[in-house]
Amino acid sequence: MSQTANDPNRKSWISVPTDSDFPIQNIPFGVFLTRDDVITIGTRIGNTAIDLGALHQLGYFRDIPLTDDIFLQDTLNDFISDGQKTWRLVRNRIANIFDQNNKTLQHNKNHRKVVLFDLDEIEMQLPVQIGDYTDFYSSKEHATNVGSMFRDPNNALLPNWLHMPVGYHGRSSSIVPSGIPIHRPMGQTLPQGAETPVFGPSKLVDFELEMAFITTDANQLGEPISTEDAENYIFGMVLFNDWSARDIQKWEYVPLGPFLSKNFASSISPWIVTLDALEPFRVESPKQDPVPLPYLQYKGRKSFDIHLEVDIETKNTPPQTITKSNFKHMYWNMSQQLAHHTINGCKVNSGDMMGSGTISGTTKDSYGSMLELTWRGENPIILSDGSERKFIEDGDTITLKGYCKNDKVRIGFGEASNKLLPPFGSKKRK
Amino acid sequence: MSQTANDPNRKSWISVPTDSDFPIQNIPFGVFLTRDDVITIGTRIGNTAIDLGALHQLGYFRDIPLTDDIFLQDTLNDFISDGQKTWRLVRNRIANIFDQNNKTLQHNKNHRKVVLFDLDEIEMQLPVQIGDYTDFYSSKEHATNVGSMFRDPNNALLPNWLHMPVGYHGRSSSIVPSGIPIHRPMGQTLPQGAETPVFGPSKLVDFELEMAFITTDANQLGEPISTEDAENYIFGMVLFNDWSARDIQKWEYVPLGPFLSKNFASSISPWIVTLDALEPFRVESPKQDPVPLPYLQYKGRKSFDIHLEVDIETKNTPPQTITKSNFKHMYWNMSQQLAHHTINGCKVNSGDMMGSGTISGTTKDSYGSMLELTWRGENPIILSDGSERKFIEDGDTITLKGYCKNDKVRIGFGEASNKLLPPFGSKKRK
Repeated sequence: MSQTANDPNRKSWISVPTDSDFPIQNIPFGVFLTRDDVITIGTRIGNTAIDLGALHQLGYFRDIPLTDDIFLQDTLNDFISDGQKTWRLVRNRIANIFDQNNKTLQHNKNHRKVVLFDLDEIEMQLPVQIGDYTDFYSSKEHATNVGSMFRDPNNALLPNWLHMPVGYHGRSSSIVPSGIPIHRPMGQTLPQGAETPVFGPSKLVDFELEMAFITTDANQLGEPISTEDAENYIFGMVLFNDWSARDIQKWEYVPLGPFLSKNFASSISPWIVTLDALEPFRVESPKQDPVPLPYLQYKGRKSFDIHLEVDIETKNTPPQTITKSNFKHMYWNMSQQLAHHTINGCKVNSGDMMGSGTISGTTKDSYGSMLELTWRGENPIILSDGSERKFIEDGDTITLKGYCKNDKVRIGFGEASNKLLPPFGSKKRK
Repeated sequence: MSQTANDPNRKSWISVPTDSDFPIQNIPFGVFLTRDDVITIGTRIGNTAIDLGALHQLGYFRDIPLTDDIFLQDTLNDFISDGQKTWRLVRNRIANIFDQNNKTLQHNKNHRKVVLFDLDEIEMQLPVQIGDYTDFYSSKEHATNVGSMFRDPNNALLPNWLHMPVGYHGRSSSIVPSGIPIHRPMGQTLPQGAETPVFGPSKLVDFELEMAFITTDANQLGEPISTEDAENYIFGMVLFNDWSARDIQKWEYVPLGPFLSKNFASSISPWIVTLDALEPFRVESPKQDPVPLPYLQYKGRKSFDIHLEVDIETKNTPPQTITKSNFKHMYWNMSQQLAHHTINGCKVNSGDMMGSGTISGTTKDSYGSMLELTWRGENPIILSDGSERKFIEDGDTITLKGYCKNDKVRIGFGEASNKLLPPFGSKKRK
């Protein structure tokens, strides 16, 4: 790939705070509402949002094959459909436009005025119309923890787990961006020892620390994608919180899997960080034993060293980090996930999203959910005011963060931060 | 509701063959490619397809609040978003335009030439862009059969089954209309007695006889829909074949449910029959014991008497009916399904599709899948040339049909007819 945009020595004429997730080497893509209530596609450097629609209209993407309205849309789907070659041309051009040595836009006040926005002037939207959303279950530590709790600690992984990236279909319609509050779901649960279910608010609302990748049009119906080609169809990644209601899940999930326990809401960070921007942070995936079937074998480094953390903020306590994990723990990598997903010919389109599954590390302070961190509530988390959390309470805000860092550059994802509200309509009823 | 379009005594000036699924009382909605390679939204009377885009441009929908391009689209999503009142105005107007006593279009040769098409001049498309697709599991007979085969005949239903319409998320991207051939999927299976899986073509490809309903925008995230209101958000129904690979399913489905065993393809009949057209065929759902939780209780007749059948045609044998069932067997009705789906606030949009689950009747000749009809292959179906079928073979065509009938009118769904091809690329390799 062309490394132009990744040049670690490049500096931008837009100021970038120390430890910003968004130096000029990142150049993520997102969709935002401007101060003029216009929806546009944009990128971000430091704390400045950049209107790519306006830049394009002003001619800054001349000679790149783009339709006139490609950035004047309310989703990135069409731009993602343009394919990897176009994404790279655009990202490299953006790096060039905002390079401190490039005076063109830098010295054009009128252009700057319509192109640049402060973050507090804009409102981030969902970056893509998500056609289909799949969630994998690819952290061995998470699957082992869950299996230990609910089945048998000595036989925690189910027989298929080491042979395939187990996954299932999720609900696209309930995925929201960071900032949108989420209602505690109502539903059926089976109380301990009871024979018939009761109805009420879930008592065990949880987060799941995940990341998700977003695809472009990858195949025709029937056609598999190889592990070798898979990354060509991955546009980028976001942080993903797969909100879960554990009590609803336990009662409903046999035999067809989680349903209402998951589809009340999922949330993502709004800036899609391209795989290209993550290139300097490639790492090996964990060694796989047994060796998977040939269609799941791969060559090279297919995972990324992405530091992850989750903070909780409550009505009475400031944000406090409750877990630190890393994407590199994933047993099954994204290339294997996409190859598995399409080995039967399943069609993958632009804007489809695939979640990693909860990313738990090997130590107790690196688990990716309250379920695991508190071990079903047995070991509550102690907050800074001395109060306890077994699961998430109304009014709590859960914030996922993620970044890559080496000695030259930090590439981050911003955050997926969402507050849990009481059940829908419960204020009105009071 | 206005019964105008349902008047059983109305006759059309378009000829309708005896026992047609599409008398003037049906007026389904679909999307087709015309002889001029234009995509349009249309309806059908007898064997004549009607271009609603052309009708609208010619002024036939005057006084109905519709945007100019509402029918000049490649999906019905926007029209469905217009809501029930608009659907009814349009359907009643169409009934009026094609009533034998209305001479306006009937006597306008130039208009007729651009509005009417023979079926062999057009190519039916997927009628909606399906945002999210959910499949329920709402036939007690089917769930009992599957539970008897794979678990315990004396304890066939899982504990949650009688308390909720169990469902799960499916894959929208792989849903195709009638006529599109489907490739036998490749995948992992665990041979009898083996400890590690093997890779290859599925050996147990099956159909599932289902129906699906298509929704309009129903709620905001967080907001539940009551059983009382649910039907207001259901635009109509189609036949649905939930193609399944039983051997892949058996190995992959624990604990998150079916995935690659289902998402290689699903197929639907291309004409959406409105709930309004089905109104004369309302019937009671089966009595429910135990009485469900209050949010799942309902009043009135919420099911429909829809005769269903499945035919198989092979390389050597003509179409032969292998099962006859009826939608009315469904234990959980559509209103309960939609109320359950949204009780946690899950968002439902225009163009979402919800499958019934396999619809099996009470007798062995009314089961809705090969799995049940042949009881896992133990009792093969005998074809007209004496050969046997345990599951579906390459080259077989499976056709789902469905219709309602009383002494005055027959309202049908046409068919979902799709051929199973060998695995993708296997011809090239030979």
